[in-house]
Amino acid sequence: MYSVFFTPRSVAVVGAANDPARLRGKLLKLVLNSGYAGPVYPVHPRGGVIQGKPAFASLAAIPGGVDLVLIATPGETVPAIVAEAVAAGARGAVILSSGVDEDALKLAIGGADFRYMGPNTEGYAVSGGLACTFAGVVDDAQQNARAAPRPGRKLAIVSQSGGLGFALYGHALAEHLDVHAVLTTGNEGDIECLDMVEHLLDEGEAGVILMFVEGLKTPARLAPVARKAAAAGVPIIIMKIGRSEAGQRAAVSHTAHLTGADTAYDAMFERYGLIRLFDLEAMLAAAAAFARSPQGELKRPVKRAAVVTTSGGAGAWAADLCGIEGVDVPVLSAALQATISPDIPDFGSTANPVDATAQAIEDGGRTLVRILEKVLGSDEIDAAIVNMGLAHAARVRGLADVLAPLIAGSNKPILFHSHIRPSQEALAALADLGGQGYRSFRACATALAALDRYAQFQARGLPELPAKAPVARFPHLGNGVLGEADSAALLAAYGLPMPPSALAGDAEAAMQAAQAMGFPVVLKIQSPNIAHKTEAGGVALNVTADTLAQAFADVTTRSRAYAPHAHIEGVLVQKMMPKGHEIVVGLIRDADFGPLIMVGSGGIYLEVLKDVAFAPVPVSRGDAARLIDQLKTAPILKGVRGQEGGDIAALIDLICRLSDLAGVEGAVEQIDLNPVFVYGPGEGVVAVDSLIVAGRAAPAH
Amino acid sequence: MYSVFFTPRSVAVVGAANDPARLRGKLLKLVLNSGYAGPVYPVHPRGGVIQGKPAFASLAAIPGGVDLVLIATPGETVPAIVAEAVAAGARGAVILSSGVDEDALKLAIGGADFRYMGPNTEGYAVSGGLACTFAGVVDDAQQNARAAPRPGRKLAIVSQSGGLGFALYGHALAEHLDVHAVLTTGNEGDIECLDMVEHLLDEGEAGVILMFVEGLKTPARLAPVARKAAAAGVPIIIMKIGRSEAGQRAAVSHTAHLTGADTAYDAMFERYGLIRLFDLEAMLAAAAAFARSPQGELKRPVKRAAVVTTSGGAGAWAADLCGIEGVDVPVLSAALQATISPDIPDFGSTANPVDATAQAIEDGGRTLVRILEKVLGSDEIDAAIVNMGLAHAARVRGLADVLAPLIAGSNKPILFHSHIRPSQEALAALADLGGQGYRSFRACATALAALDRYAQFQARGLPELPAKAPVARFPHLGNGVLGEADSAALLAAYGLPMPPSALAGDAEAAMQAAQAMGFPVVLKIQSPNIAHKTEAGGVALNVTADTLAQAFADVTTRSRAYAPHAHIEGVLVQKMMPKGHEIVVGLIRDADFGPLIMVGSGGIYLEVLKDVAFAPVPVSRGDAARLIDQLKTAPILKGVRGQEGGDIAALIDLICRLSDLAGVEGAVEQIDLNPVFVYGPGEGVVAVDSLIVAGRAAPAH
Repeated sequence: MYSVFFTPRSVAVVGAANDPARLRGKLLKLVLNSGYAGPVYPVHPRGGVIQGKPAFASLAAIPGGVDLVLIATPGETVPAIVAEAVAAGARGAVILSSGVDEDALKLAIGGADFRYMGPNTEGYAVSGGLACTFAGVVDDAQQNARAAPRPGRKLAIVSQSGGLGFALYGHALAEHLDVHAVLTTGNEGDIECLDMVEHLLDEGEAGVILMFVEGLKTPARLAPVARKAAAAGVPIIIMKIGRSEAGQRAAVSHTAHLTGADTAYDAMFERYGLIRLFDLEAMLAAAAAFARSPQGELKRPVKRAAVVTTSGGAGAWAADLCGIEGVDVPVLSAALQATISPDIPDFGSTANPVDATAQAIEDGGRTLVRILEKVLGSDEIDAAIVNMGLAHAARVRGLADVLAPLIAGSNKPILFHSHIRPSQEALAALADLGGQGYRSFRACATALAALDRYAQFQARGLPELPAKAPVARFPHLGNGVLGEADSAALLAAYGLPMPPSALAGDAEAAMQAAQAMGFPVVLKIQSPNIAHKTEAGGVALNVTADTLAQAFADVTTRSRAYAPHAHIEGVLVQKMMPKGHEIVVGLIRDADFGPLIMVGSGGIYLEVLKDVAFAPVPVSRGDAARLIDQLKTAPILKGVRGQEGGDIAALIDLICRLSDLAGVEGAVEQIDLNPVFVYGPGEGVVAVDSLIVAGRAAPAH
Repeated sequence: MYSVFFTPRSVAVVGAANDPARLRGKLLKLVLNSGYAGPVYPVHPRGGVIQGKPAFASLAAIPGGVDLVLIATPGETVPAIVAEAVAAGARGAVILSSGVDEDALKLAIGGADFRYMGPNTEGYAVSGGLACTFAGVVDDAQQNARAAPRPGRKLAIVSQSGGLGFALYGHALAEHLDVHAVLTTGNEGDIECLDMVEHLLDEGEAGVILMFVEGLKTPARLAPVARKAAAAGVPIIIMKIGRSEAGQRAAVSHTAHLTGADTAYDAMFERYGLIRLFDLEAMLAAAAAFARSPQGELKRPVKRAAVVTTSGGAGAWAADLCGIEGVDVPVLSAALQATISPDIPDFGSTANPVDATAQAIEDGGRTLVRILEKVLGSDEIDAAIVNMGLAHAARVRGLADVLAPLIAGSNKPILFHSHIRPSQEALAALADLGGQGYRSFRACATALAALDRYAQFQARGLPELPAKAPVARFPHLGNGVLGEADSAALLAAYGLPMPPSALAGDAEAAMQAAQAMGFPVVLKIQSPNIAHKTEAGGVALNVTADTLAQAFADVTTRSRAYAPHAHIEGVLVQKMMPKGHEIVVGLIRDADFGPLIMVGSGGIYLEVLKDVAFAPVPVSRGDAARLIDQLKTAPILKGVRGQEGGDIAALIDLICRLSDLAGVEGAVEQIDLNPVFVYGPGEGVVAVDSLIVAGRAAPAH
């Protein structure tokens, strides 16, 4: 689909220059030095020979036309060049120029089957393939290209920012990772990041993808592309910057108020298994962990690490950082300790961290490997961190005979670390054996945590796609806050449990209704003209059989006095529910990703603790359970210290039904169910109060 | 005080070898190559010449004796060598050997005025001074020693683990920091880490100290040494590993149960301004931030950073990471934006992040510096992160004329960062100008956060030392859980507010007492033989005037039935207090650091949210306010969303009074005041229930 960019029939470089120190000279140079075997045409009004190639005065002058056109000329020249390219039969362009009038650009393309990257892209480079960029790091990489790949998965980098994309490339090369491709999309006038991710997945060369984005041009494409990545078992590590407050809609409901600009991205990344990380060390560490994992081996949980060290003090440091990242470093069983004990001197330690002492590598590493094989062979341990000196490449190469088979044969991750500052040469030597040397214990711990996150995602899988397009069952909800009757009808249609209620025209009817549902009850005036019932005196709480008649009279009298011309439909009699665990469940419709379900702890803690969790619709029972588990106050809901927990199954039901509603009712913008009372196990839940905001229908996804 | 280690009159190396590849050969080589100007004596039974120096057959054979003896011979030989050293008039030894019988060692020293480092130390090295170690990194450093120091503070590293201490040295050198000294203390048979920190402070060469410890040998020395560091304005960054559960005493009280093994360390570090960090990147970043700050300029808060970048995409990334570390990146005022606007092209940005574009350094950096001077000259900004390419040293040197005066002249931190992988040469060139190039935005953000933490500490200062030794006012508290009367008496003596209560011998007296304090009341049986009152039926809640007589009879009858032979002292009548905000305040006595005060949110949230904070005694009003602020639920106590907050001043009073008690009553091991009801502003607090555990008196500190 994007073959014009990766396997073009020919490439023209417009404005090509001789001097490789200038941008357009370097662009031509990198194209020529890449592994691209097809014809490359420098284009320059003066013609002649540029970097040893005959130059053409214009794209039109190239006999037989051209397929891919690289443009790094001033922005104002770009539309005309693109028009020329289209006329010359080109199928695509890489527009490295900035300051391009994108409307003029689209006009120049017209209806032609023509794709472009940029403007304002720094282009892309494929190892052993075509390089269409002037990034200096590619120059270096071409000169230091390796003949044979290292063991493991290849990395690809996809970034909107060219500067950051190629900067990451430099960092990844310094970690001795095999980088298959760097693809930067710039302003994304046409091609966007997700296109390039999809291309990589179709192509199948990259085993792990590192994305760097400010936002997605077409958010709706995230789910299908992520689904493809999940099916291929290719993890995506994503760094998303720009947590801007702008664009956040006015908050009417509580749910909307608690939704940050990035909440939907977070919820989508979590659902679709993208590993979101925020800092360079963590991103590189996670990329390395996936890169060094054998194909098809990313489904094992990584919860329990062994730390095996040749130097005592470092082990505890590793264990502390594993703890911070939620990776356990459990004491090995007595039986396992007994099996490794013969290989560990008295001044070492067989517990975990395992202090194998410097002796473990003095026999060419055979002792170290014996210990690791036993530890990793047990079912007590999911991964190993091996701390040893990585200052000298010769030492690493001296261990090659035993380390390479250990790494190749292990179905559990083995991470190497050097507390002594590692040398690039030693790290490179280790990478040649398929091993990764991490530069800090934090990097090791974040790497293990990333592996576990991805394994968890793979274990739970992705929801089935909805079988057919959703149908709006309540198409005429109008705009704004729904009335009580409309709200109740909508919620009831989806089976959301609410307190029993009935509309009563007079006190006698109210008494009958109340007797049927049981006292105490609440009375609420019902009028389309009275928005603020409490202010109008239109609400009476805790009404008993004794006080009902008087309360009914009070509520109607006060409301008439408050709004003499209001149309009174009657008085709603609602059963007053006993208190339960207070929870909030909500729905918000994100402009990018459609409806999200929110679950939060109730009352004052919701905002003070920001104790909320979000997931995109549809929400499965498993998703709902995870939402509840994400709450800081989840232990209370599950019962702590002898106090009774709540009916979790019923709460999961309610969440899933709200998700059903959100998936179908495209005109519902926001819902707060606040509070939801969660009663004891088997005793159900009830949405005591609700606020529903309808608006223009947004497409469900 | 430690002059024998740093300026000895002479040094002997026992078992010195010729081959510098062997440990004892390298030890001699490093001594000889260090800046040490005094005589160095190789000692070897065979005599001869070793590394160009005449060797002596024994320490005794050295004419005029020897001052400092370095020992790296097998452990079993060490006591005899030390005995010889003492006899030869030596004042100290560095014992690099492991496996030393420390009792025999002490016997060998006897009453001599003789100090030693180790055993099992990797020794120490002072730049331009004496190096007593075989660490390879010192060898490298000696060969690459710089003639002139860089601008800024010098770093010193103090570590128990030799391996990690010298590993940190290597890392610090790779960050182009000037390291004054690396001091490793090993098993700390005599000299401990805090001795070396104190030495560094007395000496005054190091401007920032990086400590790496598993625990402190003499915890009581932390406070005085930290006090000295604070007075000198020398920040201490500490990495403490080994958060072991071992040694934690059996938890009787709630407070003890919530105290982790490291809680006391954390509380002490916080009180005494030690910056505790956990991972290598953060430690190096903080060390660099302090090292590059001019002397005497560590008192400014660092809360608002400007990010000035020559490459657009990177700015938002920097801002995100600042946000994670709690450093604000505020939009610049319109006025400030107007002043920098002429220097920023249209495709840049004057907001914050400030995108100065690549043009800002194209004129030799004058534009960049003009922008930075204006931004840092405003009172809107406390620090700047400058993102620019640091791949080429020549480029940095080309900016020297403008950058060096900018850095030297700024009283606010300027941190440099390169999103392109920086080269060591460029970072070194920047360090020569007094600037620090950080390797990640996370490093920048943690550096700024560390500067702010230290400034906050300097602003609040340290508590005055208690004027005199504490006196136990209740010396005969006995052992175990105190009775209600003893508890009440103790708490009352320190002015801790409790509900009114009175002991009544009969129902009539109870009625009189209850009428005096107001109904409802609680009745509690009082007997030294009944520990579990509720189980015995000895408690009646919510007693009114109508029910008092019956309740009194019930309580006594049930208790007598439960424990027929119990001595009943009477019935305690206690006013039943209205509910307030629920808080827990506690006291725990740490084996290392003495009494700690705990403040936690009340009820179920205490444990579910682990919402507790600790501080060592004495707790000032400011400390108490900070303890409250540390609670996740603090906003509730302070009043949110129109709900009334609590009487914070009264809660602070209560905390300080408990601190007074803890400082004086050495025999009190644990106190829980649970719950403390905090009423509305001006309405006070009351400790509704208390549990006090007395034990053997521990020394207050």
